[in-house]
Amino acid sequence: MAVAQAAPGIVCVGLGPGDPELMSVKAHRLVRHARHVAFFRKKGRPGKARQVVDGLLAPAATEYPMEYPVTTELPVDSPEYVAQLAAFYDDWCAQLETLARSEQVVVLCEGDPFLYGSFMHLYTRLRERAAVRLEVVPGIPGMVGCWHATGEPITWGDDVLSVMTGTLPEDELVRRMQTADALVVMKVGRNLPRIRRALQRTGRLDAAWLVQNGTTASEQVAKLTAVSDEACPYFAIVLVHGQGRRPEVAW
Amino acid sequence: MAVAQAAPGIVCVGLGPGDPELMSVKAHRLVRHARHVAFFRKKGRPGKARQVVDGLLAPAATEYPMEYPVTTELPVDSPEYVAQLAAFYDDWCAQLETLARSEQVVVLCEGDPFLYGSFMHLYTRLRERAAVRLEVVPGIPGMVGCWHATGEPITWGDDVLSVMTGTLPEDELVRRMQTADALVVMKVGRNLPRIRRALQRTGRLDAAWLVQNGTTASEQVAKLTAVSDEACPYFAIVLVHGQGRRPEVAW
Repeated sequence: MAVAQAAPGIVCVGLGPGDPELMSVKAHRLVRHARHVAFFRKKGRPGKARQVVDGLLAPAATEYPMEYPVTTELPVDSPEYVAQLAAFYDDWCAQLETLARSEQVVVLCEGDPFLYGSFMHLYTRLRERAAVRLEVVPGIPGMVGCWHATGEPITWGDDVLSVMTGTLPEDELVRRMQTADALVVMKVGRNLPRIRRALQRTGRLDAAWLVQNGTTASEQVAKLTAVSDEACPYFAIVLVHGQGRRPEVAW
Repeated sequence: MAVAQAAPGIVCVGLGPGDPELMSVKAHRLVRHARHVAFFRKKGRPGKARQVVDGLLAPAATEYPMEYPVTTELPVDSPEYVAQLAAFYDDWCAQLETLARSEQVVVLCEGDPFLYGSFMHLYTRLRERAAVRLEVVPGIPGMVGCWHATGEPITWGDDVLSVMTGTLPEDELVRRMQTADALVVMKVGRNLPRIRRALQRTGRLDAAWLVQNGTTASEQVAKLTAVSDEACPYFAIVLVHGQGRRPEVAW
């Protein structure tokens, strides 16, 4: 079984929202048998994806932490930082390709790799440049774990669900929130005051929840009005449940 | 292990998009050890959720197919049908509660139970009325399996993803599509001509994909312009990938 799994190439594995029990059967097997494991992290941090697989990796596995260039000196949207980041992805693309010619490399990715996933920047480069097998395994998105943490369905009937990032300008957030029934705001962190103002302006603030570390031991669920703007992590999610216009109609 | 799993109560298990390998580790174990398994289906059909677990159930498991009232005589949004459906959910709520006082009942649900899931109607009733333990296990939503079937990330950078149902009126679909970067339309089937017109009106038709049975052996992926309106299944998904406004910025 382990031998059949280990065809050379790069396999990006979606790990789901945080609880290792919520990894897919396929992801769990690939991680346990992996000999080469790569993952993104910030310098000095363990890395969110790496934390999910704690205790699952084989002792002989080699780890490849891909550390983002340090951003403290540059705004994340400055041309200089964008160029640094592009060079960083280019470099890891080349390193992983060299390794994957003869070995299977498992790239860890929290949530689902194709929904705001950090792997996507490597993926497009590898697909264009690399002559190696490339596979992506879906995962439960982080937001799904977060709406489960509230104990309420996110949508009902014909609700429209809109998923947006807290990095958008306030007026843009307002415009997007106005046409959403259910809504999820990702990338919260320092953007929380702006997200809060946009929710207020669209009359959604009282219905909003803040979920941190959904499905993990450190899960925190609170109404947004009960939480201050300070020290909110980047990976927290703000959500508002849909109310449903045809709740009794089955599909 | 199996004994520890079998605490009395009702556990709704999200099965993911279709490939049994994409069930979570937790869901897979609950299904394999289940002694009582309930699932929705249309009369005369195997049931989509039941198909996902084919070959996984224990031989001694008792199955409880919950068959929707027949709709051929009534429009699905008529008051009569809504009343029939409410009675149907009430009845199964009572039956499952009785059983769950002493046994563990696993309710199968395709995709994620809290995203347009058929279990939600039972869930709200059980939560209000039943004095039994109630647990819901997240799954990979069907739409996630479908966007993986296209081999492309659904969102980039600050894209807004909007998820809507094809049952909305055409002008409403247009309005919602206009404020979406990436979009997913669920509940396609007979609604496909209207969805197609709305995509055309918003200039998105050429970029749209139709995915049927994503992640299963019968998966079909095609540009929507290459597919006719006929014989499209209800569970197909139409999607348009986001193009990303800040593709090189990491999060």
